Amino acid sequence: MTEQRHGVTKMKTRLPGRTGVLEAAAKIAAILPPTPLLPLELDGVTIWCKAECLQPVGAFKIRGAWHRLSALDLRERMAGVVAFSSGNHAQGIAWAARKLGIHAAIVMPSDAPKPKLDATRALGAEVILYDRRQEGREKIAESLARERGSVLVPSFDDSWVIEGQGSTAIEIAVQMQAQAGIAPGQLVIPCGGGGLASGCALALPGIPIAAVEPEGWTDMGESLVLGRVVPVQDNPVFTSCDALQTKQVSPMTFDILRGAGAMGVAVRESEVEAAMRLAFDRLRVVVEPGGAVGLAALLARKVEAAAGTAVILSGGNVDRSAFAKVIAGG
Amino acid sequence: MTEQRHGVTKMKTRLPGRTGVLEAAAKIAAILPPTPLLPLELDGVTIWCKAECLQPVGAFKIRGAWHRLSALDLRERMAGVVAFSSGNHAQGIAWAARKLGIHAAIVMPSDAPKPKLDATRALGAEVILYDRRQEGREKIAESLARERGSVLVPSFDDSWVIEGQGSTAIEIAVQMQAQAGIAPGQLVIPCGGGGLASGCALALPGIPIAAVEPEGWTDMGESLVLGRVVPVQDNPVFTSCDALQTKQVSPMTFDILRGAGAMGVAVRESEVEAAMRLAFDRLRVVVEPGGAVGLAALLARKVEAAAGTAVILSGGNVDRSAFAKVIAGG
Repeated sequence: MTEQRHGVTKMKTRLPGRTGVLEAAAKIAAILPPTPLLPLELDGVTIWCKAECLQPVGAFKIRGAWHRLSALDLRERMAGVVAFSSGNHAQGIAWAARKLGIHAAIVMPSDAPKPKLDATRALGAEVILYDRRQEGREKIAESLARERGSVLVPSFDDSWVIEGQGSTAIEIAVQMQAQAGIAPGQLVIPCGGGGLASGCALALPGIPIAAVEPEGWTDMGESLVLGRVVPVQDNPVFTSCDALQTKQVSPMTFDILRGAGAMGVAVRESEVEAAMRLAFDRLRVVVEPGGAVGLAALLARKVEAAAGTAVILSGGNVDRSAFAKVIAGG
Repeated sequence: MTEQRHGVTKMKTRLPGRTGVLEAAAKIAAILPPTPLLPLELDGVTIWCKAECLQPVGAFKIRGAWHRLSALDLRERMAGVVAFSSGNHAQGIAWAARKLGIHAAIVMPSDAPKPKLDATRALGAEVILYDRRQEGREKIAESLARERGSVLVPSFDDSWVIEGQGSTAIEIAVQMQAQAGIAPGQLVIPCGGGGLASGCALALPGIPIAAVEPEGWTDMGESLVLGRVVPVQDNPVFTSCDALQTKQVSPMTFDILRGAGAMGVAVRESEVEAAMRLAFDRLRVVVEPGGAVGLAALLARKVEAAAGTAVILSGGNVDRSAFAKVIAGG
């Protein structure tokens, strides 16, 4: 399954597909109960909120991590895995690695929020700090993986990771059928690197997809309009959506979303905050800013709510003080 | 099934039992997906948190309301139901009544939090306000029910309501078996009037039960010690647990809990707040003060966490500003 290239163990090119998503869904169903699909009435229309913020690590990232790590062979498991992430992917990898008895080394910025560093360490991962201003984390992770002969697990530019994230949409379809007797008519999905959105596009072909990004970080949306991958512009505006601060999507996630005819949507800070308050008031779940952009797009009517609309609340890892400030406002 | 007594339609005496709890569980499973049973590691021990705060009305009360209202015959449904509540029971009744096409009149204090009044009205219920300082809500509700020939649905002193709430424990047992391959070893349950705790005791006979109350409102705990129902003492201390401010439990809930050998536990404000913060940090769910007392008891080691310990997070209806204050503190 693998080859050595430049000393780094890399998987042979393996395009992600629906079969892989269904395999991932079965593997994940065997170890994790489905997160709830919560109905929410918006102006008389019921939309369905997939609460991935309730996963054990607080985000959907556990899915791709599990699908990838559980696919490693014995030799690869012995050599451990390397990942780079300042947040949710780190915890997903650490969780899956612990469960499989694999050593995980996670390259994290030295100024990452302490709760995220602590949570990753608490899951047993080796955390390797780097200086965000001086070094590139991809390079550090790559050379570490080369040195150790470890598999590098990127946070979105990876077939297994994409397929794993796509299992979210399989669960949504099963739950919507069971709870309301209908099929999903539209998916509204937070988009950073596009792993979740592209995986869901593979999972449910033919369903309209809205990939939602914070204003200023709309590289996926712009790439979809231009028909080629373009990066985020220099000095982008501030966003509280730390989980969606991806400077450039990958050709793989982009190609899948372009092929699916996905639409990019941008939301602003005030819309994200309103969505976080709505989730608090009506669903009683904690959603982090980046996890709330899909709901924000619906609430701001940038995406029209219709029967069978599902929106993913992709994560809930937010500092207490930041959350308190948001819900006390508005 | 019913008889007229003093002009009020009352059910014939019907003791709540395990058969009724199992019936309730089946009826509720047909309309509501199970709320998640979330694992939480406390000092190396995994406890299981039943997130009833994620029910459509934000509390377990939807269960008893559904079991009771769906058991009404056609004539009773035509005559509507009456309930009194300042909070979660009101919304549970309103939700079930709307789904069944039954008119619901809810007697609520005129100074009830506006969000709770609004939510009850939004569910289509007729809200009848009364002055908490001058009138007794039981009396108002009883005379209204008599006048209209409606069934009065108390919030805990009712066989159907108790059985309905007990369905929570049936779900816990099924989920714990599926997720961890074990049976519940202990249930830790918030206690106001004791409907939830007594229903769960009927559901899983032989399992140790801790009924947790806020300090100053420990009438169930004291009644269990004394072997007879005693009320809350005059001028009890302040508690933020508005859902647990019951001045006296009913003989029915008391008898069941006494028969089950349940233990009363008291928690203080600071312990409740710590539990709300823990639920925020680690589970990403919003729990109201009264819903967090069980977790508070475990966190404060007033109840020992052991394998198979399940704790019910019974509700999540809390004002934004109150919640923000709690999570910003500590």
